[in-house]
Amino acid sequence: MPLHLIGTGLGDETDLTLRGIELIRQSDAVFLESYTSIPCAAGFLEKLQAITGKTVEPADRYFVEDATALVELSKVKKVSLLVVGDPFSATTHSDLYIRCKAEGVDVTVVHNASILNAIGVTGLQLYRFGQVITLCFWTDNWRPKSWFPVLEENIRRGLHTLILLDIKTKEVSDENLARGRMDTFEPPRYMSVHEGIAQVDLVARELGSKCINESSRMIAVSRLGSVKQQILHGDIRSWMARTPAEVADRMGEPLHSLVLPGDLHPCELEHLLTFPAV
Amino acid sequence: MPLHLIGTGLGDETDLTLRGIELIRQSDAVFLESYTSIPCAAGFLEKLQAITGKTVEPADRYFVEDATALVELSKVKKVSLLVVGDPFSATTHSDLYIRCKAEGVDVTVVHNASILNAIGVTGLQLYRFGQVITLCFWTDNWRPKSWFPVLEENIRRGLHTLILLDIKTKEVSDENLARGRMDTFEPPRYMSVHEGIAQVDLVARELGSKCINESSRMIAVSRLGSVKQQILHGDIRSWMARTPAEVADRMGEPLHSLVLPGDLHPCELEHLLTFPAV
Repeated sequence: MPLHLIGTGLGDETDLTLRGIELIRQSDAVFLESYTSIPCAAGFLEKLQAITGKTVEPADRYFVEDATALVELSKVKKVSLLVVGDPFSATTHSDLYIRCKAEGVDVTVVHNASILNAIGVTGLQLYRFGQVITLCFWTDNWRPKSWFPVLEENIRRGLHTLILLDIKTKEVSDENLARGRMDTFEPPRYMSVHEGIAQVDLVARELGSKCINESSRMIAVSRLGSVKQQILHGDIRSWMARTPAEVADRMGEPLHSLVLPGDLHPCELEHLLTFPAV
Repeated sequence: MPLHLIGTGLGDETDLTLRGIELIRQSDAVFLESYTSIPCAAGFLEKLQAITGKTVEPADRYFVEDATALVELSKVKKVSLLVVGDPFSATTHSDLYIRCKAEGVDVTVVHNASILNAIGVTGLQLYRFGQVITLCFWTDNWRPKSWFPVLEENIRRGLHTLILLDIKTKEVSDENLARGRMDTFEPPRYMSVHEGIAQVDLVARELGSKCINESSRMIAVSRLGSVKQQILHGDIRSWMARTPAEVADRMGEPLHSLVLPGDLHPCELEHLLTFPAV
């Protein structure tokens, strides 16, 4: 029996491919992975069910990362695991693939758009991007900055940087962890573009960066690839001149991401300027 | 009236999204751009027509790059331009977008998988890729090597490099150009993985590269994202020990691409080794 890893794309249920839908319809069990990304569309799960005629169960980090249940089930049933975006945009799904192969379970992959290619809609050429980075929520005693040299190196090479922002779903607080309350979860948190830009700004100042400062341009995107996507641009000074609430109002619901452009070709700039300034 | 830029994905007509199909059905004129990439599936155009009930016309470089005809048509009719992969994987479509915006034509974008994210199926993590490079067919007096420092820089940073290989469609030979025979085209040419690896090997030797040599691993993919995809790996020595015909036999029809991995995480290596060696 196979495990189907099916990318759902970025927007809503109409971003499913014909091949994906056909494989879901043939499946005995269907899960939607919902912690490395989230679907933009409200009622996505119900709409998926309406289109495919299948019950779709949400799958959290523990279910997918443990993998045993999924692999065992795939030995006896046709299983589909739906992933927002493209199936291999998160490490987890590679682990699952290896587990399946080791246990003789075939894996079918149905690709779809992910933010890694859809970011081209900003007008920035995909072949001029350097390594992607991810910003994490800082805590009182954990403030990772290891992404900063990557960002600077990309700029030095004239390359654009896609900056992914942290997602926390089904997190257990330290207090609940200490009390053994493993099934009490914090509300989901999604880093906003304002938080992301503020973090870049802060680290650039702290480290006295020579190539990132208040005049550096940042492009913010929200719900990219959906019909409700928003793209705004401005230098760090302009972004920071707005309150978090003002930016939240402009950018709207999650997911948010950022791009710090490198050298902009005149055509890239012309395309970018078709989007509003913050 | 809008222009719809619709990604078809990488494989066959079943990789179309529901949204893409719906917009094609609503269109008065439908074109398939067929020079920055090609569909893997035989009879793709006819199958597209069968699914959508629309006549689909192939659009060559001259038609798309000139853009005037497309923009003018979009002012009076609903036009769809289908692009293999994702619409913004080639510069051309950004030019078209800018032209539309300048002339008051709305543009709808329907994203889909492209090789830039589907390459994750090799097991290499997408966030560990550096800048992508493209190899061109060399001629007697034009042998560009400007991609080589980018490749070396990626390796020095431990990053993987996706290497796209040249496509020549509807080329006019120098002789025909001189005689003014602008509508006599050379047969299409697609660089094969053997040619690509040989070019990397040659340049590495010529320039006395310190980080790319016979022991460097290369991953070759063909028809990526289609049901007929092929993934093989081996060091440059192993690849070059095969004749072009042997490699052509293993890899099959176009399109071919390469990856030169940087530092491989043990999980990436484990995933990669699930594919056969050359």
